Amino acid sequence: MSTQRTQELASLLERIRERKPLIHHITNMVVMNDTANITLAIGALPVMAHAPEEVEEMVSLAGALVLNIGTLTTGQIESMLLAGRRANRLGIPIVLDPVGAGATRFRTQNALHLLAELRIAVLRGNAAEIGSLIGVASETRGVEAISVDASPSIIARNASSHFGCTVAITGARDVIVDGERTAEIDNGHPLLASITGSGCMATSLIGAFLAVEPDAWPATIAALIAMGVAGEAAAIEAGGPGTFRSHLLDAVTALSYEQLRERQRVSFL
Amino acid sequence: MSTQRTQELASLLERIRERKPLIHHITNMVVMNDTANITLAIGALPVMAHAPEEVEEMVSLAGALVLNIGTLTTGQIESMLLAGRRANRLGIPIVLDPVGAGATRFRTQNALHLLAELRIAVLRGNAAEIGSLIGVASETRGVEAISVDASPSIIARNASSHFGCTVAITGARDVIVDGERTAEIDNGHPLLASITGSGCMATSLIGAFLAVEPDAWPATIAALIAMGVAGEAAAIEAGGPGTFRSHLLDAVTALSYEQLRERQRVSFL
Amino acid sequence: MSTQRTQELASLLERIRERKPLIHHITNMVVMNDTANITLAIGALPVMAHAPEEVEEMVSLAGALVLNIGTLTTGQIESMLLAGRRANRLGIPIVLDPVGAGATRFRTQNALHLLAELRIAVLRGNAAEIGSLIGVASETRGVEAISVDASPSIIARNASSHFGCTVAITGARDVIVDGERTAEIDNGHPLLASITGSGCMATSLIGAFLAVEPDAWPATIAALIAMGVAGEAAAIEAGGPGTFRSHLLDAVTALSYEQLRERQRVSFL
Repeated sequence: MSTQRTQELASLLERIRERKPLIHHITNMVVMNDTANITLAIGALPVMAHAPEEVEEMVSLAGALVLNIGTLTTGQIESMLLAGRRANRLGIPIVLDPVGAGATRFRTQNALHLLAELRIAVLRGNAAEIGSLIGVASETRGVEAISVDASPSIIARNASSHFGCTVAITGARDVIVDGERTAEIDNGHPLLASITGSGCMATSLIGAFLAVEPDAWPATIAALIAMGVAGEAAAIEAGGPGTFRSHLLDAVTALSYEQLRERQRVSFL
Repeated sequence: MSTQRTQELASLLERIRERKPLIHHITNMVVMNDTANITLAIGALPVMAHAPEEVEEMVSLAGALVLNIGTLTTGQIESMLLAGRRANRLGIPIVLDPVGAGATRFRTQNALHLLAELRIAVLRGNAAEIGSLIGVASETRGVEAISVDASPSIIARNASSHFGCTVAITGARDVIVDGERTAEIDNGHPLLASITGSGCMATSLIGAFLAVEPDAWPATIAALIAMGVAGEAAAIEAGGPGTFRSHLLDAVTALSYEQLRERQRVSFL
Repeated sequence: MSTQRTQELASLLERIRERKPLIHHITNMVVMNDTANITLAIGALPVMAHAPEEVEEMVSLAGALVLNIGTLTTGQIESMLLAGRRANRLGIPIVLDPVGAGATRFRTQNALHLLAELRIAVLRGNAAEIGSLIGVASETRGVEAISVDASPSIIARNASSHFGCTVAITGARDVIVDGERTAEIDNGHPLLASITGSGCMATSLIGAFLAVEPDAWPATIAALIAMGVAGEAAAIEAGGPGTFRSHLLDAVTALSYEQLRERQRVSFL
């Protein structure tokens, strides 16, 4: 890939650290601590606020809005719609993580409802979650994809065309599609799949990069390179999932422009 | 104890890793991240889902249902009853953790309500929590047992006979009773008591073992051996509760058949 | 400062470990696990209970009540008022953490409502949060203070006089004011600001010290010395925010009377 492109992606990290954008999360309770901490680690400021009385005011201060349905309730959907509509009006980008879509109708339908009601900049999930939103059959077990009846790149392409937004499917290889543009990332480490919420953390990083780069496709690519490269660095120090989780935050904090530029394994198709 | 019995218990670990059962949790918010991560670490798949709209659908995909009242609300009880009734109808085993029973009437009464309305396979708690459910006086302080007016084994025996299920009382020595069958486990380490939620994590492991072994008594014994042996291994690496918590997940992930068979300190009474 | 005073502050740690007071938290979901674990680490017993049906009963068993509005909902305010009124009636001290006050009207108004309805012993926040409660203009970004139009010590003095309670503003230098009494603490480490919830954890420690020392001013000073000294010790072991977070719990657990007495950097003004 072109050196210039790689440099531009890597430089987004420095922009986050200069601007320290606020990333408003309406998100799941399981990994709320990790998603807040990884947002701090990349250089942005997290806020988790979900009360309907305050989400519109909070999001108007934010550089991006992260919506994650991992522990969805009907009350939370209302807050997501309130915050999301305000974000849309103000031009604040939204990233949606449809955790567990396909596992229950409640999750699938509410993810589709958010996609219908809001202008989403980036949709990130695993192949089964994204697939379920465009009718691809898959076997999910809770929030884990077991098998899917189509390749990630086909699902991402169809979902991007269907929803008119950037779609990122993460896995051993990440696929990021925006209309005609496709990128694949081969960074990462199996330990990322051994802890709960690494997908949610990737989504938070996408929020941070979206806050400093209006084009959602390179922002998403840069975020997933950052996650993958940090995962590789953390794995060297880790003795298993528990210590990996600690080292991952250290590694995201320690990420540098040079490291992203040199360690990225991205291909533009 | 018989070598055959020990081998059978240890082999349950391999069964979890082959089958990767989904463990549906309706659980407390304090240690949701730890209980999800330990479920992954033992080789099963966690899902935390509590919205009444989805719990019946979610539990029907699960190998076991974990109910934990650590941060109970009235809405959550409704979800627990919906999921629990469906689980009972489908023959999916339920483990109940009555966190803080005895500390407030709200917790005691709701734990009893769940025991009355649902067929519970395993009830796990500390001596004060389980004692409070059968009227044994105790001093609890929040969710910690300070002193109890009966021995753990008497409480476990009476509770098992009263509720007609397997009862596990964990502590320095774990007691697991199912009707006439009693086992005691001397594995574990004091650092387990230094972190919040080690009881809740043990309950999640019981869920994982229940999903692959229909007899709740050996499943519970195997889960508590796994927790204790992992705690012993983690303690060697730890400098205190914070690093112990990380190493505990590493140690659960690294557990092997041989380790469980050799390190178990279980007696059948 | 006088050796006697330093010794008295340090000895409060030993009193916590002897008495193991219950610290009832109605708190935010982002750092609930960390605040529970740090409460255990200092030697007290945490309980997180927020259901309106049980908070009055729970708080009557407690040595202190911690109210933290980090993920506030209207239902939670009701529980805070129920628990707080019962605490006031029983003489149980309350510490309030107005997380994000100033960021949204919902947070500012509810923090003021709690201060109006309850007798608060200690109010702890950053300069922007406390400033917003007495009308000092500031720029906050979510729950982070960016800039404030007055010095922390002026804000703390005015807030203490306005609300008639001990006020602690934490930052690189902590300021603790109670009426005419002012103390400043220079312990701590920049890594404390790199993780989410270090402020909330400091508030939990204040709760633990309040439970064993009726004079809120020295209790707060001792708690913030403990937090700062533990932060310094943890930083030596840490490679970044993730490992720091683990080592912080180890360091709080390992705190000793001698360490607090020798490492404290407090000035009484």
